[in-house]
Amino acid sequence: MQVAVLGYGTVGSGVVHVIEENHDSILKKTGVDLEVKYVLDLRDFPGDPIQKKVVHDYEVVVNDPEVKIVVEVMGGVNPAYTFTKRALEAGKSVCTSNKELVARHGTELIAVAREHNASYMFEASCGGGIPIIRPLRTCLCADVIDEITGIVNGTTNYILTKMIQEGLEFEDVLKEAQQKGYAERNPEADIEGHDACRKIAILSSLAYGKRVDYTDIYTEGITKITSTDILYAKAMGKTIKLLAYSRKEGNKVLAMVAPYLVGQADPLASVNGVFNAIFVHGNMLGDAMFYGQGAGKDATASAVVSDVIEEAQVLGTSVMSAWAPEKQELMNVADMRCRFFVRVSGSDESAARDAFGDIELFDAGVSGEYGFITEEMSEAEYQAKALKLDGVLAMLRIRD
Amino acid sequence: MQVAVLGYGTVGSGVVHVIEENHDSILKKTGVDLEVKYVLDLRDFPGDPIQKKVVHDYEVVVNDPEVKIVVEVMGGVNPAYTFTKRALEAGKSVCTSNKELVARHGTELIAVAREHNASYMFEASCGGGIPIIRPLRTCLCADVIDEITGIVNGTTNYILTKMIQEGLEFEDVLKEAQQKGYAERNPEADIEGHDACRKIAILSSLAYGKRVDYTDIYTEGITKITSTDILYAKAMGKTIKLLAYSRKEGNKVLAMVAPYLVGQADPLASVNGVFNAIFVHGNMLGDAMFYGQGAGKDATASAVVSDVIEEAQVLGTSVMSAWAPEKQELMNVADMRCRFFVRVSGSDESAARDAFGDIELFDAGVSGEYGFITEEMSEAEYQAKALKLDGVLAMLRIRD
Repeated sequence: MQVAVLGYGTVGSGVVHVIEENHDSILKKTGVDLEVKYVLDLRDFPGDPIQKKVVHDYEVVVNDPEVKIVVEVMGGVNPAYTFTKRALEAGKSVCTSNKELVARHGTELIAVAREHNASYMFEASCGGGIPIIRPLRTCLCADVIDEITGIVNGTTNYILTKMIQEGLEFEDVLKEAQQKGYAERNPEADIEGHDACRKIAILSSLAYGKRVDYTDIYTEGITKITSTDILYAKAMGKTIKLLAYSRKEGNKVLAMVAPYLVGQADPLASVNGVFNAIFVHGNMLGDAMFYGQGAGKDATASAVVSDVIEEAQVLGTSVMSAWAPEKQELMNVADMRCRFFVRVSGSDESAARDAFGDIELFDAGVSGEYGFITEEMSEAEYQAKALKLDGVLAMLRIRD
Repeated sequence: MQVAVLGYGTVGSGVVHVIEENHDSILKKTGVDLEVKYVLDLRDFPGDPIQKKVVHDYEVVVNDPEVKIVVEVMGGVNPAYTFTKRALEAGKSVCTSNKELVARHGTELIAVAREHNASYMFEASCGGGIPIIRPLRTCLCADVIDEITGIVNGTTNYILTKMIQEGLEFEDVLKEAQQKGYAERNPEADIEGHDACRKIAILSSLAYGKRVDYTDIYTEGITKITSTDILYAKAMGKTIKLLAYSRKEGNKVLAMVAPYLVGQADPLASVNGVFNAIFVHGNMLGDAMFYGQGAGKDATASAVVSDVIEEAQVLGTSVMSAWAPEKQELMNVADMRCRFFVRVSGSDESAARDAFGDIELFDAGVSGEYGFITEEMSEAEYQAKALKLDGVLAMLRIRD
């Protein structure tokens, strides 16, 4: 089974490594005999054994009938989109780790694959090495999925974990993470929540069966979290996690990305560092969680190669996807209900009671301010009440 | 797609419920139109809508060519074994939640299925509703799996969680669990670890590719755990979990079931109550964990029906299983290495140092005894050293 790998970056070199290193094990377990025929990259890699497979011209790949499966691990929307579409139109199956492309053009590419009896798979686009896309399709197919909650961005989880464990500020940990290679030089997509937003859009499209447009999803990042927020979190016996969340209610879906206060007994609370986890609720299954490395060369490549293997096993047919082209209507985030944690400057707690009614106060030993938790209410109610209160310093939602 | 359900107990009625309740969702997501044609049971169920499908004679099921898939949820080895084998020989695919049967006869039944272009699936046999068998086959197929650690028995995890959270003794919690239906009237299979042993045998056979005989696996239950052990666990910042563990080293596999001390930062530590979790380590993937409800009518049935759906999709072919008939050689448990926690009566800590060398002492405020952790050593070394020490009250292994 001849495979072409588009892009010899981190994931691409991982894919080549997994296919070579585990070749015999894969053959024995699955009957699939994988071989990388081409690596498409603009660069050359003199001295690397892969050099003899490197091509610079996509036409070589797409016009070779021996290449049945194309692994797109270039990242970015273009030319990945064009290359993917052309491969599918040529009847080749494609798999990818490219969440940006899947979030933006997944609906179309799935349809193109179907028309050409090929498959478009993207296990590695959400949760890196964590099996989640295929389990949603094959293991939880007997369930009606009604809720997904994920820690799906390793960079922000690493930063929050460091801030919490060592009492550091966001900017300092970000710099360190950049030095260690855990955060990119331009970290906006991670720290502003855009990466997590794309992933929850993909997972929600698969789980609820209609296209969730990521540009419609309310998204907050972690740049406003301070060490003082963390002091309060600890005083409440909680931790802070950037959650990508969606829930189906009737015909509508609520989807959002935001930092949440999470109780220590919640399995998501112990997902630390660069690890990711995805919580799924099904109407029969109840709660299930999938945990693992959300990034990393070999872990991500392992997920990509699991797609290659399945595509090889079903070659000539198109694997069915629940992701239909109709657009999923989203709930207004103003209707989202939860309890809210609020920090306010000053010491006049009666002002908070006047605005919010019953509240639970917490003392984190911070002078000049106080913190409290509201009763459950909608975002709209919260915003209206917060307007009545002077000196709101910070607000965090609570996962209950 | 006509299905017969053998046994209308807890799981059997759950399977009927899932197929009826989620029929349209399943059809839409997978294209599979499921219908229960027969329910085989010795009893009648007057007033239950299922009554018109009840049959008492297996010949009706096995001789009906319209029945393509048989769901065996009777439990026990006989007649489940005979019924399963005959269905497979008739070219019907079979799926089951029956870990006893899979652990004992899985090798043979997989081979019989293959000979008759049918499949034998058992997702629900390990971890109830948690997807683990299919992910091992389809998601982690690019990896060489070298370690599995599971909390795979809900009854013992419920009992340990209650003991830890409420400081109760084993016998008292067991009685309460029996009253609530979380433990059986004859609880031996759970509390002595036999159920966990069967499950780690099944998971290991699939992960490492050869038949692991459950009767060869060293197995300890939780009946000796006391509230004093738990006091020490808390003093060490740990919890106690019954772990089903296996690891591949070269051509050998180490497999065992025993209560372990688990650090609070370990994701397995927050798996509480009747929840289960299975940790898997792959050579590319690194650590991954699958978490969910290890038992329960609907959760288990959801896993069974996911097998039914896959069997329907591949009807007429046999899904490949890595589980080969050759017997896997097991390591002697005496060679298993870990750190050990030991409780000793008296107050002469020098005796422990004389026997074990460097130790780390822990004070749990229990008079008349002391506790310590050894350095890493083999079970054989531990046993030899413990012989030199009078008054050993308890020993627990430590998961590091």
